[in-house]
Amino acid sequence: MAYTKVVIIGGGFAGLTAAKALNHAKLNVLLIDKTNHHLFQPLLYEVATAALSPGQIATPLREILRNQENTAVIMAEVVKIDKTLKQITLLNGDVHGYDFLIVCIGARHSYFGHGDWEFFAPGLKTIKDALNIREQLLISFEKAERLQSIEEAAKYLNFVIIGGGPTGVEMAGAIAEIANKTMFKNFRRIKPEEAKIYLIEALPQILPMYPSHLAEKARIALERMGVKVITNKKVIEINESGVKTEDAFIGSKNIIWAAGNQVSPMLKTLDVPLDRAGRVVVGPDLTIPDHPEIFVVGDAAHSIDKEGKPLPGVAPVAVQQGRYAAKLIKNATPKEKRHPFVYFDKGSLATIGKAKAIAMVGKLQLSGFFAWLMWAFVHIIYLIGFRNRLGVMFEWAATMFTGERGVRLITRPIDQDVSKK
Amino acid sequence: MAYTKVVIIGGGFAGLTAAKALNHAKLNVLLIDKTNHHLFQPLLYEVATAALSPGQIATPLREILRNQENTAVIMAEVVKIDKTLKQITLLNGDVHGYDFLIVCIGARHSYFGHGDWEFFAPGLKTIKDALNIREQLLISFEKAERLQSIEEAAKYLNFVIIGGGPTGVEMAGAIAEIANKTMFKNFRRIKPEEAKIYLIEALPQILPMYPSHLAEKARIALERMGVKVITNKKVIEINESGVKTEDAFIGSKNIIWAAGNQVSPMLKTLDVPLDRAGRVVVGPDLTIPDHPEIFVVGDAAHSIDKEGKPLPGVAPVAVQQGRYAAKLIKNATPKEKRHPFVYFDKGSLATIGKAKAIAMVGKLQLSGFFAWLMWAFVHIIYLIGFRNRLGVMFEWAATMFTGERGVRLITRPIDQDVSKK
Repeated sequence: MAYTKVVIIGGGFAGLTAAKALNHAKLNVLLIDKTNHHLFQPLLYEVATAALSPGQIATPLREILRNQENTAVIMAEVVKIDKTLKQITLLNGDVHGYDFLIVCIGARHSYFGHGDWEFFAPGLKTIKDALNIREQLLISFEKAERLQSIEEAAKYLNFVIIGGGPTGVEMAGAIAEIANKTMFKNFRRIKPEEAKIYLIEALPQILPMYPSHLAEKARIALERMGVKVITNKKVIEINESGVKTEDAFIGSKNIIWAAGNQVSPMLKTLDVPLDRAGRVVVGPDLTIPDHPEIFVVGDAAHSIDKEGKPLPGVAPVAVQQGRYAAKLIKNATPKEKRHPFVYFDKGSLATIGKAKAIAMVGKLQLSGFFAWLMWAFVHIIYLIGFRNRLGVMFEWAATMFTGERGVRLITRPIDQDVSKK
Repeated sequence: MAYTKVVIIGGGFAGLTAAKALNHAKLNVLLIDKTNHHLFQPLLYEVATAALSPGQIATPLREILRNQENTAVIMAEVVKIDKTLKQITLLNGDVHGYDFLIVCIGARHSYFGHGDWEFFAPGLKTIKDALNIREQLLISFEKAERLQSIEEAAKYLNFVIIGGGPTGVEMAGAIAEIANKTMFKNFRRIKPEEAKIYLIEALPQILPMYPSHLAEKARIALERMGVKVITNKKVIEINESGVKTEDAFIGSKNIIWAAGNQVSPMLKTLDVPLDRAGRVVVGPDLTIPDHPEIFVVGDAAHSIDKEGKPLPGVAPVAVQQGRYAAKLIKNATPKEKRHPFVYFDKGSLATIGKAKAIAMVGKLQLSGFFAWLMWAFVHIIYLIGFRNRLGVMFEWAATMFTGERGVRLITRPIDQDVSKK
C-alpha cells in the first residue's frame, strides 16, 4: 500500500514542528531544506557577537529526525512549485508528486527597494550571515588598532544598527558589551569602550510591539550601556562611507540591517496572491485558494488573527502553525471540516545586553533582571537537543562570570578585498 | 628611555611562547599575525570532523596577552623582511625598525610541485581549511543521499586521505567514526557505514617516526574501523574524478592532503640559505648568518639535533625554540656567549579514532586506551585558556557518551559551484 506523501519545504520552526508532529503517522514525509540544520534563530545575534558558536544553536535536521522512520531529509534548494502537476523543481533535480505540501521557507531581509544597501549593511538570518557580521565587527577593531589617525579609526569604531525591533535591540546591546567589557583590555592604541553604537528606528519608539513604558525602559537601559538610540528617523542612504538619515550622516564601516523582512521570490511560482512583503495570503486553514492540500505557514505566510491583524513573523506563530497543518494532514481533515487556525499568544520577550530584558506575558509586564531570567529560561527550554542546551548554558555561565566572548575568531585575511567576503 | 624593540612574526606555538616568555621584561614587544587567534593545531582535525567548534581550539591572541603590558598585537600579513634596513613590509602598511626579530610563521602544505592538486585535495592547517573540509565531508553524504544511482553515490562515499603521518591517521580514524557511528541512523537511502576510507602512504609504514611494531598496531586499529591502509604507494595524479596511485585508481570527491609541508615564500626575502621545503637553515643559536638579532624558529626553521638530523615540525620543538630565543633576547646574550639550542624530546603521541592511541615516552611505548588517555590528558593540559579547556572536555565527554558529532553544520548551499568554495 502506498502511503500518503507529505512534502515539507523548510526546516525552520514551522517545518520541523510539522515534521515532528507527523511522527508515527502512516505517511511518507520528505523534508527539504537549503541547509542541513535547524537553526534557533532567536539566538543568532549571540553568534554574530561571538558569545556562542554556530554549533550551539544549530543541529543537523537528520540528527533531530533520525529515529523518525516515516521521514526522509534532503538538502536542496527549491526553485519552483508547480501546483497543477504537483511537482517541485530543485536547483539540481526534482520531486514528483505529493498528497500534501507544507511550504515554510521563512523570510530574508528586505531593503525596501534598495537592494544595493545589502552590501554595506548585511542582515542576520543565517549562520553564514552571523559569521560574516562577527568577522566584520572583529576586523573593525583590528583595523582601527592599526590606523594612525584618530579620524580614520573612528569610522571603524562607529557601529550603526538599523531597525529597533528585537534583533536590532539585541545586537546593539551585545555590541556595547563587546566594546565596554570584552575588548576592554585587549587593545593598546584604541579604547574599545569609546566605540559609538547607534540604533536607528524609523518609528517613534524602539520595540514597537511593546507598550511605550516598557520600550522606554529598554531605551534607558541601552543608553546606560552607551548606545545612542535614534527614533523617528528614516534612513535615506547607505554607502561605503556610512549611513545618512533625514538630518544626519554617521560615518561607519559597521552597519547592520535589522529593519525589514521579505520572502523568497520562489513563492511567486505558486501563482497566488502575495502581500507587499511577498508573503502568501492564506485562508483561515492556512492553505492557498483552490488547493486545500497546500499549506503555507510561518514567516512565509500572511495570516490574520481574530481582529483581522496580520500575525507577526515570530517563532511561536511558526510553531503553532506547523503543528496545526500537521494535525489536519494526519487526520486527513477535509477542507469544510477544518477549524480556522487561532494563534495563542504566550507573551513576548526581548533582551537588552547582559542580564536585562523586557517581557509581556498576558497582563504581566516585566523589565530588568527577572525578565531576563525568564528570557534565558524560555530560550534554553526551547533550544532543541540536549547537548545544545547544556552547551549554551555552559557558554552563558562562562560569559556571565568572565565577561569574555569566547568565539572571537576571524578566519579571513584582514586585508582581503571586501568584495570577496 | 627607549626600550629594546622586539618584533615577533607569527602567533603559533613558537611565537606565542616567545611573547609570553618576554612578559615583565623591559622591552617593547610587537606580535604580528595573519589571523587574530592562536590555534591549537594538534586538534584541528577534530574541527574538520565536526567534533569540536573552532572557538574551542582557538583563542584571540589579544585575549591571551591582554594583561601583558609590554606587548602589542596587530593582525597583518607580512610580505617582506628587509634585514639591512630592519624594516618589515605588511600587505597594508609597514613596521619600521627592531632590535630583535623572531620569525615563526609556520608551514603550509606542500604538493611537491603539483600545486594544481590543492583544489581537489585540500590540506589542514588553518580554521578555514578545517571548515572547508568539514563542509566537504558533510555535503558528500548529502549529495550521495540525493543521487539515484549507486555508482554515482559511491564517488561521494569514497574518502581518500593522502599521507600516513599523525594528521592523516587522525583524519582517517575520525572519518571512519563519522561514517560508522555518527551518521549511522541519519540517512534513509545510503548507508554511511558503507563509506570506504582509504589512507595512502608512500613509505612502507604509516606513522614513519614510530617503531614499526607500534605503527603496525595503529594500522590494525584503523583497519578494524574499516579504513583501507595502503602503504608503499605513491600518488601520481589527483583530479576531479579521484586519485591515481602507481597501480590503482580510486574514484572520489573527498580527498584530503596530509602529505607534506612547505614554508611561505616570504622567507625568501630574508635572502639566506633555505632547505628543499623552503625552511630557513639556522645556526646553533637559531639565528641567520651575520644577523644575530634575527631568530627563525618553529616549522619555518631548519635546525638540527645533536646527531645532525633535522628537528621535526611539531609543537614541542616550536615551544622550546620560542622559549630559547626569548631567553637570549631578555638577557641580551651576545652571539659568542649563546649556548646552542638543544631539543628535549618528551615523547610522541598519535591518536587513532576514539579512545585508541599510540605513545612513545622515552623508553616507554604504549598503545590502546591508556595511550589515548595520556594523549587526551596532554592535549587538554596544553590547550591555552581555562574556558577552552573546559569546553573541550565537555564536548569530548558528550561525544564519548552519545557518539554524536555536534558541529555538523553546512553553511554553503549544496549546489554552489565548487570553484567558489
